[in-house]
Amino acid sequence: MTSPEKIWTAGLIVIGDEILSGRTQDKNIAQVATWLQVQGIRLAEVRVVPDVEARIIEAVNALTLAYDYLFTTGGIGPTHDDITVDAVAAALGVPVVIHPEARALLERYYETRGGLNEGRLRMARVPEGSELIPNRMSGAPGIRRGNLFLMAGVPHITAGMLDALTGQLEGGPFFREGRVGANFVIRSVSAEDLKACAASLTEGLTSNGHAVTPGGI
Amino acid sequence: MTSPEKIWTAGLIVIGDEILSGRTQDKNIAQVATWLQVQGIRLAEVRVVPDVEARIIEAVNALTLAYDYLFTTGGIGPTHDDITVDAVAAALGVPVVIHPEARALLERYYETRGGLNEGRLRMARVPEGSELIPNRMSGAPGIRRGNLFLMAGVPHITAGMLDALTGQLEGGPFFREGRVGANFVIRSVSAEDLKACAASLTEGLTSNGHAVTPGGI
Repeated sequence: MTSPEKIWTAGLIVIGDEILSGRTQDKNIAQVATWLQVQGIRLAEVRVVPDVEARIIEAVNALTLAYDYLFTTGGIGPTHDDITVDAVAAALGVPVVIHPEARALLERYYETRGGLNEGRLRMARVPEGSELIPNRMSGAPGIRRGNLFLMAGVPHITAGMLDALTGQLEGGPFFREGRVGANFVIRSVSAEDLKACAASLTEGLTSNGHAVTPGGI
Repeated sequence: MTSPEKIWTAGLIVIGDEILSGRTQDKNIAQVATWLQVQGIRLAEVRVVPDVEARIIEAVNALTLAYDYLFTTGGIGPTHDDITVDAVAAALGVPVVIHPEARALLERYYETRGGLNEGRLRMARVPEGSELIPNRMSGAPGIRRGNLFLMAGVPHITAGMLDALTGQLEGGPFFREGRVGANFVIRSVSAEDLKACAASLTEGLTSNGHAVTPGGI
């Protein structure tokens, strides 16, 4: 608390003509902002850009340089104007590849929903070197590549992806209701050890006068 | 219709820590986007930046260069963190001056509301060379300097300012409900002439098969 803390920062790129035309009211800015705050990361800038590859590349280049983390929402769906993956891969100078796990996920998801067609398979494309962000709402996963996170445009799908990322990112203390807080992430293969560790951590913190909000398991 | 039309473009800078923290859900992006569409102007990019002078200056410089029009929302209120006027003046390389008409407006408005104090007088400050954008909601006007428009952060106040600007900006044909449209602005000191001109224009357009939506007077 007394040492100068690194302030972790993030940029957000909202991708989509529908936001710039006013047809759709954006909800992801507030949603990502609120979530980042709890992770101890400051949202430092947002850019809203159209479905134009050069404009996405330009924004990705500017914001990856300026901040610790970069999030995007929109443009990872099955249609031809979903070009976020291509633009990000171009910005990073890596090829676009089919992620085998994403392909398997989509095959499973669409097995009872008309099968995997060319459009749907587009949602298995990732910039080379990416991991997947789980999506419990619909078949298509989000994409993580280092400190870069590509998420859905549909707010409730984005919410599920953010949920999957909770506690995964390095951040500083956060501020809520005028008080300073911090997140603790405990990992174990044993559910019993996890519970025991959480209990003793909670006990230690509360006996020192700190309020504890238990998270998910 | 057959000649290649210039596409008029605008940038929007949303200024305010409260948007980036998620405390406030932005409504100005959709509102400005929708309004611009009807003016025949394409919203090409939005940036959300914090109440930090250097960051506002950077965004103003980038977007004035890139687009025909630039709009800002937020940061023109009475408090010390309302620094949009200072940042824009610095970006343009002009001094900040008290606009005499704005001062008179504020004096009148606050006459029965506790008088004009130092904070409230801040709202009469403009980058040198600016005109005022009328605000029928509260005392403080918006600011226009050429193709640059500084508006309030509170959405219903911004709405009033946009209303005052309707039909004032040069734009191309607009698209609504799948059809191409155009705005006609008629000005006269005589209300009678105005009505007569509008009637004959409407008659001519409808007899040629065009739908006409009457505007305000």
